[in-house]
Amino acid sequence: MIPENLLKQIEFIKEIDKIKYIQRRTKLFASDRNENDAEHSWHLAMMAIVLSEYSDAEIDLMKVVKMVLIHDIVEIDAGDTFIYDQNKNHDNTEEELKSAKRIFGILPEEQAKEFIEIWTEFEDGISNEAKFARSMDRLEPLLQNTSNNGGTWEEFGVKYQAVYEKKKIIKNGSTELWNYAESLIEDSVEKGILKK
Amino acid sequence: MIPENLLKQIEFIKEIDKIKYIQRRTKLFASDRNENDAEHSWHLAMMAIVLSEYSDAEIDLMKVVKMVLIHDIVEIDAGDTFIYDQNKNHDNTEEELKSAKRIFGILPEEQAKEFIEIWTEFEDGISNEAKFARSMDRLEPLLQNTSNNGGTWEEFGVKYQAVYEKKKIIKNGSTELWNYAESLIEDSVEKGILKK
Ligand SMILES: [Ca+2]
Repeated sequence: MIPENLLKQIEFIKEIDKIKYIQRRTKLFASDRNENDAEHSWHLAMMAIVLSEYSDAEIDLMKVVKMVLIHDIVEIDAGDTFIYDQNKNHDNTEEELKSAKRIFGILPEEQAKEFIEIWTEFEDGISNEAKFARSMDRLEPLLQNTSNNGGTWEEFGVKYQAVYEKKKIIKNGSTELWNYAESLIEDSVEKGILKK
Repeated sequence: MIPENLLKQIEFIKEIDKIKYIQRRTKLFASDRNENDAEHSWHLAMMAIVLSEYSDAEIDLMKVVKMVLIHDIVEIDAGDTFIYDQNKNHDNTEEELKSAKRIFGILPEEQAKEFIEIWTEFEDGISNEAKFARSMDRLEPLLQNTSNNGGTWEEFGVKYQAVYEKKKIIKNGSTELWNYAESLIEDSVEKGILKK
């Protein structure tokens, strides 16, 4: 007999395949197509592992990796919100919470609870792990846009001040990575790929 | 000043973006397009986290997750080898080792060494972590093919005996998951989507 919990877990594993169809605004480094949420989440996990030494605070790396791997699963129901969208607040919307409850709720009860808690902790951005995970989430598109001649900044007319405000979040997780990010932003202005 | 190590790490983070262009033979669960290596690696990491309780041996989950996240990075240079390809042995080819040394070698020395070791450990398949990671790598396409009316089995004329041989690897990591996998294989024969 196959345990009931395993069948729930398999159902969850199949359900989250849908994240591969959620397109982000940002493009891959080679610039020719949009990135999807699975690719994005994989890349953040790799970044968290590679860059963990730059966290200002002691962190539980496994928790950070869990956070970045699952943080966009809610977009299966709620859709991707462009970070520079003026009309929609990205943070922990009711729609996203409903989505988290439905999708993580496919899992056995205890595991569902753990995943919803980790997702909520990431969204709240208060714990050291959440701060570092959010730094990764802001750093990746900065690397992409600076590699892609302005990328979404160019495409959607996003200006220096808006970028600076959004990217400042990186500082909460890592002073060193923020120094680097700030230098990328200033370089972008000099190169003319980010307008003041 | 930006630390030299950080610049190496950023270069690595950009280089591995190329994994998003490596197409696998298997299709997504919705069956309409091939999966790429970044999506595959993300999915294996999620599976390892969700299914870790079924590992027969005690495992360091963080190491398993690292293994599955990086296991296909070598394919950036070496390309994906179809598991049922008779002419090419997938296991730890010289080409893949060369690729591992080049790509992980972009990282600072100590980190490069760690990544090459983890990748080699996965390929060797001897440690408990490698056994469980390899179970995930075999289970995902089984779930995909059974969801996709035979998927690559149908497409490339792969028969029961070949599938059974390849999937048996799952047993090395988890008896419980192997029982489930075996039942999926037998069901597939009954449904006619896998030929004896
Ligand atoms: Ca492979």
